[in-house]
This record gives sequence, C-alpha cells and structure tokens, in this order.
Amino acid sequence: MEKQNISFLLFEDFETLDVFGPAEIFGRMPAVYQLNYYSLAGGWVGNKDQVHIATQKLALAIDNTTIFLIPGGMGTRVLVHDTEFLDWIRRISEQSFYVLTVCTGSALLAKTGLLDGKEATTNKRAFVWVTTNGEKVLWKKNDRWTVDGKFYSSAGVSAGIDMTLGFIADQHGEELAQQIAQEIEYKWNANKEDDSFQVSE
Amino acid sequence: MEKQNISFLLFEDFETLDVFGPAEIFGRMPAVYQLNYYSLAGGWVGNKDQVHIATQKLALAIDNTTIFLIPGGMGTRVLVHDTEFLDWIRRISEQSFYVLTVCTGSALLAKTGLLDGKEATTNKRAFVWVTTNGEKVLWKKNDRWTVDGKFYSSAGVSAGIDMTLGFIADQHGEELAQQIAQEIEYKWNANKEDDSFQVSE
Repeated sequence: MEKQNISFLLFEDFETLDVFGPAEIFGRMPAVYQLNYYSLAGGWVGNKDQVHIATQKLALAIDNTTIFLIPGGMGTRVLVHDTEFLDWIRRISEQSFYVLTVCTGSALLAKTGLLDGKEATTNKRAFVWVTTNGEKVLWKKNDRWTVDGKFYSSAGVSAGIDMTLGFIADQHGEELAQQIAQEIEYKWNANKEDDSFQVSE
Repeated sequence: MEKQNISFLLFEDFETLDVFGPAEIFGRMPAVYQLNYYSLAGGWVGNKDQVHIATQKLALAIDNTTIFLIPGGMGTRVLVHDTEFLDWIRRISEQSFYVLTVCTGSALLAKTGLLDGKEATTNKRAFVWVTTNGEKVLWKKNDRWTVDGKFYSSAGVSAGIDMTLGFIADQHGEELAQQIAQEIEYKWNANKEDDSFQVSE
C-alpha cells in the first residue's frame, strides 16, 4: 500500500503543540503515514518557543497531500488577512481527502469559505475571534473536536491529540487508537462531544 | 530579572512530544524562560516523524543552562553507550539548577551515575530496559513523575507535560500551572504519584 501523505502547514508563530501533538500520533504508524512539513516560502519556520523547523515550499504539497493539517497559533491573527496564503489553503484543502485543524487553525480554513454550513470548533478562549472569520460555519461551543465530512477540527492545543486519536480510530478502529494512547501514556478523551473547557465571552 | 535558560538536549531519533510538550508549557512564560535547543554537533537534528529542528552546539550549553531537559526516544538506545555524549550530559547536569528527564531520557541521565541513590521514573513500557542503565537508582514503578532534589523525571511521552506543569507549580505556584493547563485546554494530572500506566514485565 502506498503511504498516505500528511502535510503539516507551518507559518511564523505556529503553536508548538498544535503541530507536534498530532505529529507524535501519526508518527506511531510509519507504515501508513508519511509526515511532511510545508510553509509558503519553504525553509526555516520559527515560533515564539524558539522552535525552528525545516519545511518544504507549500506549492509542493499540491497534488501530494492526502491529509492536510492546519495548526493554530498567534500567526493566524495576521494570516486570516493574507489572501494569497488563504488561496493556497483553499486549493490544498479541496484536493485533500481530509483536512484537520487544531485550535485557531480553523479560523484560517473558515476564511476560505470551505467550512460554510459545516460544523467546526476551536480553542474556547479564542472562540469569539475565530467565529468572526466564518459567519456561516456551524461553530460548536462544547465539543472537543468535530467531524463533518472530510473536515475535522479540534478545540485548543492539546485537543489536537484527542482529535488525531479520534481520526485514527475512525480510520483504523478504536483499539489501535487506544493502543497508541497507551504507548505515549496519554489519557485519551475519546468522546468528541465532551469538552470541559468553556467559552469565555 | 534575568531569564532562565532552558536547554533542550536533542539527538537523532528524539521522541517528538517528549521535547515539544514541555516546550509548549515553558513557552507560555516567555518573560521567565528562554528556550534553547542543543545537540552534540549542532545544526539540524531529525527524527522518525520527519521533524528537523535547528540546534546549537552542545558545548554552548555549558555555563549557560539553568534547566536541562533530556527527552527520550529510540535514539537513547544507542546513546547510552556513547561515553563522550554521556560526559556532556553529566557536565551540564552538574552545573544546572534543575535537570528534567522525559520518558527514556532518564536512561541517559542514569548512565552518568548522577541519579544513583535518587528517585526516578520512565516510560512504563521501557521500564525494564531503562532500569538496567542505573542499578543504584531508586526506580519508581507507579509514579507519573518524580522529584528528588534538583532532578525531575517523568513517565512516558505525554507525562512530560504533567511533569513540566508540576515543575511550574513548584516554582510559581499551582494556580499558575492550572492557568497554563487551561490555556492549552489540557486536563493536567496534577498528582505525581498517580500513574495509571503499568509496567509490562
């Protein structure tokens, strides 16, 4: 079987754990998933935690992405106004079999219009801002993660780990997801409708 | 106040989340903590998840490290036999105010002898192997993380997040640790003696 390409979208001031939580999970199935990291211009991408990671040029993700993962982070506050960047997100998302967003990554995807009429969620602390980027999205206030067709979206930061385990469960069965959680000694919140974090108005 | 330097030790095949879970937490206090990434030779360091991170030469961490963080990962299986590498770990650990290990990172620190007579733990799935690297260490089978003087050690992978929040609580109070957990929407296991993952014999 050919491996499935996962394209992680990076940008200046991505949120560290939004990327590397899901990467840890997918990386546990190296026979199935190939992890790749992209940014608009390629090369180094850094963030506030002094993480500098090597990326390929985003154009190379075109026609080469099975699963597209969009993290959040403070960088999204600027990027929701970057029409060129959003156009790349729209194109790659349209081509991908699945699109996963973590935290405020859903603001970027919402801004492309692809989430219109679909369920999505985000970090509960950024809820009000995120929702302004997609008035027609069916934003869920109390979900740990949402699934609507090919679109998965998680709540804040660490919720990306729960969502990715949920994605693995949907694709390969819950037993395998639980096994991976066991390997990384993580107490998986396996109920996507159970989120104990509240929207601050 | 001068910032406290945290030196993350990277090496080929470090475990992704062992590094970036703690980095996410410490990165939430940028006024207090400066994050730095080192490897023996400096430059790129990569792992099985195709994460390639920029690092500085480890020699630069000498006299420049307040908190030394040693992750685990498959790379440790080789490195416990690398006397030059272990000697760097011993020197930097001796100088540091605190040394934190995640998962099988405790095997590397144990091998230096600095954990002799001290409590430590590790990933429960790698427990038997890790303990062979430090016969005089007081290995704890049922702890999420341990604290013995300046040495903190956590169980597997995601336990590094719990330990780092515990470290923040010890340094700055539990309220701040809970606030950070809230920010990243993480259900902190705040009881270091409560680990539900069992040693497989």
